Amino acid sequence: MSKEIPYKVYLTENEIPEAWYNVRADMKTKPAPLINPGTHEAMGASDLEPVFCAELCKQEVNDDDRYIEIPEEIRNFYKMYRPSPLVRAFCLEKKLDTPAHIYYKFEGNNTSGSHKLNSAIAQAYYAKKQGLKGVTTETGAGQWGTALSMSCAYFDLDCKVYMVKVSYEQKPFRREVMRTYGASVTASPSMETEVGRKINEEFPGTGGSLGCAISEAVEVATHSEGYRYVLGSVLNQVLLHQSIIGLETKAALDKIGEKADIIIGCAGGGSNLGGLIAPFMGEKLRGEADYRIVAVEPASCPSFTKGKFVYDFCDTGHVTPLAKMYTLGSEFMPSPIHAGGLRFHGMSTILSQLYHDGYMEAVTAKQTECFAAAEEFARVEGILPAPESSHAIRVAIDEALKCKETGEAKNIVFGLTGTGYFDLVAYQQFNDGKMQDFLPTEEDLQAGFSHIPDTSDVKF
Amino acid sequence: MSKEIPYKVYLTENEIPEAWYNVRADMKTKPAPLINPGTHEAMGASDLEPVFCAELCKQEVNDDDRYIEIPEEIRNFYKMYRPSPLVRAFCLEKKLDTPAHIYYKFEGNNTSGSHKLNSAIAQAYYAKKQGLKGVTTETGAGQWGTALSMSCAYFDLDCKVYMVKVSYEQKPFRREVMRTYGASVTASPSMETEVGRKINEEFPGTGGSLGCAISEAVEVATHSEGYRYVLGSVLNQVLLHQSIIGLETKAALDKIGEKADIIIGCAGGGSNLGGLIAPFMGEKLRGEADYRIVAVEPASCPSFTKGKFVYDFCDTGHVTPLAKMYTLGSEFMPSPIHAGGLRFHGMSTILSQLYHDGYMEAVTAKQTECFAAAEEFARVEGILPAPESSHAIRVAIDEALKCKETGEAKNIVFGLTGTGYFDLVAYQQFNDGKMQDFLPTEEDLQAGFSHIPDTSDVKF
Repeated sequence: MSKEIPYKVYLTENEIPEAWYNVRADMKTKPAPLINPGTHEAMGASDLEPVFCAELCKQEVNDDDRYIEIPEEIRNFYKMYRPSPLVRAFCLEKKLDTPAHIYYKFEGNNTSGSHKLNSAIAQAYYAKKQGLKGVTTETGAGQWGTALSMSCAYFDLDCKVYMVKVSYEQKPFRREVMRTYGASVTASPSMETEVGRKINEEFPGTGGSLGCAISEAVEVATHSEGYRYVLGSVLNQVLLHQSIIGLETKAALDKIGEKADIIIGCAGGGSNLGGLIAPFMGEKLRGEADYRIVAVEPASCPSFTKGKFVYDFCDTGHVTPLAKMYTLGSEFMPSPIHAGGLRFHGMSTILSQLYHDGYMEAVTAKQTECFAAAEEFARVEGILPAPESSHAIRVAIDEALKCKETGEAKNIVFGLTGTGYFDLVAYQQFNDGKMQDFLPTEEDLQAGFSHIPDTSDVKF
Repeated sequence: MSKEIPYKVYLTENEIPEAWYNVRADMKTKPAPLINPGTHEAMGASDLEPVFCAELCKQEVNDDDRYIEIPEEIRNFYKMYRPSPLVRAFCLEKKLDTPAHIYYKFEGNNTSGSHKLNSAIAQAYYAKKQGLKGVTTETGAGQWGTALSMSCAYFDLDCKVYMVKVSYEQKPFRREVMRTYGASVTASPSMETEVGRKINEEFPGTGGSLGCAISEAVEVATHSEGYRYVLGSVLNQVLLHQSIIGLETKAALDKIGEKADIIIGCAGGGSNLGGLIAPFMGEKLRGEADYRIVAVEPASCPSFTKGKFVYDFCDTGHVTPLAKMYTLGSEFMPSPIHAGGLRFHGMSTILSQLYHDGYMEAVTAKQTECFAAAEEFARVEGILPAPESSHAIRVAIDEALKCKETGEAKNIVFGLTGTGYFDLVAYQQFNDGKMQDFLPTEEDLQAGFSHIPDTSDVKF
């Protein structure tokens, strides 16, 4: 091939997409609506407004508009760290001695260290536009909380983050980044909320959980004048904002005249994967092109591959609506893997529907093999990957090695969602040979399923 | 002004400079040579070869060639993380309400988190080309050690890092990054070297120092077949490699048709500052253009502003040659400021000569005012700066505020050398209002000066 492909394809700022792409518009079977856990009735935008910003509620239920314009203020913020590069992994290809062409879309070049900022800035913008004083949220590993803190600092909004207590104590640096951006960070469960006090009373000395932190953040949002709750994954609105990843990826590939054969992303709640694949999936849904689209989930939390496609709570505290999704049960306890962003029992309803309808594949990877892939990648490509991202790297390498067997020069594209600077405890375990793999037993799975609520009366 | 300036100016990969710029070629008064501390005789390339790679020794003493070609292998590595963006700080300007135009060259978008990688990859390349097995070095805060580990992983070279024991213990994450890239990291003083054993015997339980770590790294390099010692700052060769920063900055400004009025960089050993200003200084030396060039040093370690321009040791262990530079004395103990990269008693000989000859200014900044500037910057521009970089931000903001007074729309360019992800203990202190400023007393300074060796017989 005589055509010269650069190491990194950067779009110009004028090429940053002006609208997000809403894949739901092209889905024949739309994702099922959220339902009220008490009445089992579908929730419309107005039902969601006590909790979420008004404009975001509209986006949440919008199954029709293919494109939704990105407001100029958000585009200006995007210009500070986007377009993100699409990188040709020449050095990794050489190391693997594969004829495959490997590309990765790198979303870690901003202080939050991940793609989460793409949606955080949008949610902060709509909160500001609505005249709110501030927003509340929960954070586990801390990437979402950091992204939201940065976004709130930019729009001069108050930001209250409830951070799972065990992470608050184990990851003081994550906490300090958020404070540096002006957020208040509270260890959850706290004594500031009714639900927090109740949990502290019931389980003295508990380290907290994401489910508990969600409950606290929602309570504060709904009981404070001028506040709303925001969430960094799973929701349709989040996948909409994250479509910027896929739109840029596709534009960059078009620019160098290349077409993806396989698109690979890690899957936790679905925000990165849904964003990366959006425009490719759109072409596939419209019958304009075909792609292999592969979700990689941790073997210890296999929502797609071992879960059930049913209505379930999004949180362990059962304060959220029910969503129809692949789920392991809201009380399934994922073993302590280091890719905290993938430790979620459920999955985006959009991705769940697409997987159910056969538009994408899903595979699992064990954490030790993911860290091995991350280290191999880091040593030749330079970037230290987040543990979440390492799942996509693992499968990208495996696919590239298959190409070596067959001699095919496939174009493999994967999402490198973020950096691992705050995950070095995990790398240390791996470097010391002390990292273990955890696989749920059949009993663990059955225990999780046993708490899925009965929604057999629901029609969707 | 109708011309549209983008947020970020990226050069294309084809616009990455093909040669480093050697500012010495344009200096009327050349920097003084290194001298042997015993004989006080000037050291030529061959005198340095037992310690450093041969090609790097040639670069060290090359005062004549204006351009030195960047080998293709290094250029290919540069393509993985360069060109780095020149960013127009629109949001900071708006926040400050200044007519000034502020630009920053951001060198933190690589896993080492700083500009250090620019020279590390060059030094690793020449070591590999010479057929060496590996290199040794010391690291304090860890940015240089990380950069060198990444570079050695890329060229499959062994990398032995001696890390100041107190940092080794306080910064386990920095250590793990290096291990992830395959380096061996040893707490210094160790029991592996003669000098280490001696220091451990003399000062049981000592936390070590950079001076001691240098001594260990040099001992191992000179006593091991196929090893050489490498250094991340101060040396002429390092400033040469770092000229890539300034060359790209100038090319980006030229591309948008802008000319810098003030160029600001933080100054520790001089690697970033020397690199950033190189081509601008070249124009100034040749009389082709004029610029205000400002070095910012920490108030607690004021080499330029309070030091003497004399021959001195580069390390506290007195194993290095003597360099003619602005120095506070090799036994001057800088107070514990958080910008570890700026805690050096001396300064690059090139920059020392240029400052002595009136081609640049120097100012000091206190760490609390630097962290305040860093936080103000982070909240609007997104990036969390390294404590070192915050010194340049402080002065850039001050200059922009002066422009507000005078109404001048000056172009202010500063170097944002790196990110602060591994410096969050310092941010925490600042956020908690517990950070203090340390200024050396007249007594501290005199104590430092009292250990400067007598070199009155030297002619240079």
